[in-house]
Amino acid sequence: MAEFRYKRRVEFAETDLAGIVHFSMIFRYMEEAEHAMWREAGLSIADRDSDLSWPRVSSACEFRNPLFFEDEFEVWVRLAAARTRALDYEFTIVRGETVIAVGTMTSVCVRKNPEGRMRATEVPERILTRLRAPQS
Amino acid sequence: MAEFRYKRRVEFAETDLAGIVHFSMIFRYMEEAEHAMWREAGLSIADRDSDLSWPRVSSACEFRNPLFFEDEFEVWVRLAAARTRALDYEFTIVRGETVIAVGTMTSVCVRKNPEGRMRATEVPERILTRLRAPQS
Amino acid sequence: MAEFRYKRRVEFAETDLAGIVHFSMIFRYMEEAEHAMWREAGLSIADRDSDLSWPRVSSACEFRNPLFFEDEFEVWVRLAAARTRALDYEFTIVRGETVIAVGTMTSVCVRKNPEGRMRATEVPERILTRLRAPQS
Amino acid sequence: MAEFRYKRRVEFAETDLAGIVHFSMIFRYMEEAEHAMWREAGLSIADRDSDLSWPRVSSACEFRNPLFFEDEFEVWVRLAAARTRALDYEFTIVRGETVIAVGTMTSVCVRKNPEGRMRATEVPERILTRLRAPQS
Repeated sequence: MAEFRYKRRVEFAETDLAGIVHFSMIFRYMEEAEHAMWREAGLSIADRDSDLSWPRVSSACEFRNPLFFEDEFEVWVRLAAARTRALDYEFTIVRGETVIAVGTMTSVCVRKNPEGRMRATEVPERILTRLRAPQS
Repeated sequence: MAEFRYKRRVEFAETDLAGIVHFSMIFRYMEEAEHAMWREAGLSIADRDSDLSWPRVSSACEFRNPLFFEDEFEVWVRLAAARTRALDYEFTIVRGETVIAVGTMTSVCVRKNPEGRMRATEVPERILTRLRAPQS
Repeated sequence: MAEFRYKRRVEFAETDLAGIVHFSMIFRYMEEAEHAMWREAGLSIADRDSDLSWPRVSSACEFRNPLFFEDEFEVWVRLAAARTRALDYEFTIVRGETVIAVGTMTSVCVRKNPEGRMRATEVPERILTRLRAPQS
Repeated sequence: MAEFRYKRRVEFAETDLAGIVHFSMIFRYMEEAEHAMWREAGLSIADRDSDLSWPRVSSACEFRNPLFFEDEFEVWVRLAAARTRALDYEFTIVRGETVIAVGTMTSVCVRKNPEGRMRATEVPERILTRLRAPQS
């Protein structure tokens, strides 16, 4: 999947007293787009039949323009790199022609051992194949 | 514990574009006070050594006055009634002399069965005793 | 508008450690449905050209079944009563045939006076007419 | 102020189905610490008597260890650099000896012009002096 485009509208509770979307919500929008991309690929980030999970190890964002209540916007998400045990994503958030934010996120593939501790493990080939398949 | 008083300050992300705390946060403040009351009683609402959990079955709130960024306020929480399988709480949120909100919440005591489904069960006597003990 | 139906999917950040949607999110879903109903009627709850706003004065909800990550659900919202200065809404949240929650919310119509204090005022006829119009 | 240390406890609604604090909350914790540092310096990030505001232009974080419900932790915040129109902060989040996350945040000083558009402006000397004063 070269790129996935996720559409969204700003909800009231996502704004703050400055009248704009709170910056922490921009990270949530990026995550929503990532999970929507997984669904589009026939996957779930929290598959009940899997013992894998995908905690973030880093995330960064530049905020270029404010988003307002009821704005319609898109999050463009791209799998920028697949490393042995981690996935790197790149995001661009746009409202029409205006770039709202650009960001990155790295998630590591972990498996819970019997004691409940998480341990990094290889990203399954099956998942990579689906995430890289041309978008249907 | 006749009543427990929980102190808090309004954070920026808890406000909305109307310049006041979003009403959904008032429910979170009530929950925070409930959990603080449990800690005060030597308990945890999410005890890792217990298979019980306490989902809400109802909650209601009247919002009487707005709360603003950086306001200091208190949530007064009281165990209003203990039924066989449920606990009823009453809450009053105040900023100084001003009543911000009054609310109620009912949580049911559930145990997960092996299939992962939740089933209502009796509130353990040990928990009631602690919640009702005079505040230390 | 007899009733408006708002579709939504559960996002990851809306769940809690119990593995289900946090109860405070249910109130946010009700609000999202209310605002979507206003948009459907050609209105905005936070119209930049209006000095009116619509704070909640009360809300209540019964939680009947849990919602899980990625569940698709609907919020059915109905204008139950229009009083001189307030609007009463009723909500039913469903996932397929399963009722997740039923709730109510009352919003009061306020105008900010020059000192920035809010004062209850009559619900404009123009707004009532639109909210009551048969759904397009 | 060489460094300010903000204490906090994890609340239930801040966790997600993975059983840990949602990564977007880490950014909120950093912001809470920043605002607490301003209060400690006798300032408010949202002073009602000022026409300045402080939107973020970038933020980044590395997540090193998970935080759990009811964990007590600290956010150490430091004014890393003061540029003409922006402030750079550095954050370390710790639970006891364990580093949970390290992050950065840059806020720009803006003034709203009469049309409501934000325009970057110089950070007032009065604010810098207070933020840099030795902690009382």
